[in-house]
Amino acid sequence: MATVDLHPDERIDQLYSKEIQIIQSATVFSFSLDAVLLGAFAAVPKAAKTKTVDLCAGNGAVGLFVSAQTRGTIIEVEIQPRLADMAQRSIQLNDLTGRLSVLNQDLLTVTTTIPKDSVDVVLCNPPYFKDQPTSQKNPNPHLAIARHEISANLDQILAVTSDLLKMNGKAYFVHRPERLDDLFAAMRAHRLAPKRLRFVHPKADREANMVLIEMIKDGRPNGVRIMPPVVVYQADGTYGEEVHQLLYGN
Amino acid sequence: MATVDLHPDERIDQLYSKEIQIIQSATVFSFSLDAVLLGAFAAVPKAAKTKTVDLCAGNGAVGLFVSAQTRGTIIEVEIQPRLADMAQRSIQLNDLTGRLSVLNQDLLTVTTTIPKDSVDVVLCNPPYFKDQPTSQKNPNPHLAIARHEISANLDQILAVTSDLLKMNGKAYFVHRPERLDDLFAAMRAHRLAPKRLRFVHPKADREANMVLIEMIKDGRPNGVRIMPPVVVYQADGTYGEEVHQLLYGN
Repeated sequence: MATVDLHPDERIDQLYSKEIQIIQSATVFSFSLDAVLLGAFAAVPKAAKTKTVDLCAGNGAVGLFVSAQTRGTIIEVEIQPRLADMAQRSIQLNDLTGRLSVLNQDLLTVTTTIPKDSVDVVLCNPPYFKDQPTSQKNPNPHLAIARHEISANLDQILAVTSDLLKMNGKAYFVHRPERLDDLFAAMRAHRLAPKRLRFVHPKADREANMVLIEMIKDGRPNGVRIMPPVVVYQADGTYGEEVHQLLYGN
Repeated sequence: MATVDLHPDERIDQLYSKEIQIIQSATVFSFSLDAVLLGAFAAVPKAAKTKTVDLCAGNGAVGLFVSAQTRGTIIEVEIQPRLADMAQRSIQLNDLTGRLSVLNQDLLTVTTTIPKDSVDVVLCNPPYFKDQPTSQKNPNPHLAIARHEISANLDQILAVTSDLLKMNGKAYFVHRPERLDDLFAAMRAHRLAPKRLRFVHPKADREANMVLIEMIKDGRPNGVRIMPPVVVYQADGTYGEEVHQLLYGN
């Protein structure tokens, strides 16, 4: 495995189930279970011609997690230079520079670089919270942009997703259940048909705190499937079998 | 308990958990688990002034199931005379003629009888399937109208629901998950904010085959809650605890 330089606030975390190493920073950005579940939920075709784009890539965790699913290329789009640089060094660290790349660009202008109707799979772990005057934002601008819709809102992100995708191309998003109404409205506005949803419950008897969603560009309506839920923790507080497997590989 | 006349094809079924008796007919209409789960999911205020309307009432099962929750009135709206008659006799059978009534009317014109903005709770177990030229419909017209959107479609039903409800009134629907995209589009079009969703899975590891949904007229957006799922059958094929309790009361 290659070596890379780390900033003083950075550390290297490992996703044991995939033997992927990721540069993390508590003061800038760290991936969490959301990214791990999104990577596992996404189905990226194996073929070398498959073109995948990760929007709102952050430190590039989702792209790294799906890299073993495909022989194709993955472009990680991230607006923040500091995070794009972390993502670039993680790609080097995992010897994936041949297939993975980082595009340090505002996703709202990304079709000036990546042609419309050219992408097979879009992945996205977007900011979860609306940017409202009243909303409490993190004073750290790196974290505020990653969590709040400051640079782009959900409707804009789905518009870009639809622009990028080929007909019948697929998008995989993770989001908060409370935004489901906005998600469905934006999908319908932008020719994206919801195909599979999977809800993530912290425990079996608790409300869901995440939703994973697969959509198809120009897919048929009224074909929504609700998969069995993910239950993160068992009653005794240890990880459920599926999540343990995703994190530790056994 | 009162006695009523039965047609030759009719029988009386009992929901043991609520000591409710319902006239059923395999050749006309029978309630199923959908109606039981909708009745349990709905929260009807106790107060005697509470006005509840059950749209697409069929044989009136949902109205009967929620009757013990409230001291208010419940109007069961059913377009088919034969079903409306069954519903009327079930109300007599359960000695509920003082609070429950049947309105044998097309729901599309129901605001000529029930004033707009006057209802606290709307309940609905609508036809699940689109009325398309290609769709296979039951040759029995009673069953075809109950299952296919022949008399009214989902958008029309939610428009009427919104018309009937007071501001902040609540509606409770049961539907198929594959129609979630149409449900969300119709809710947004008709000032109904989704509030709570609960998915029903036949078994823990199977896809959901029903969704229960609570909506609020003029409620705030982005407040969707996904409740813990209902799992109907345990791995051994017997009812799960919650469903057994709903059906048998113990």
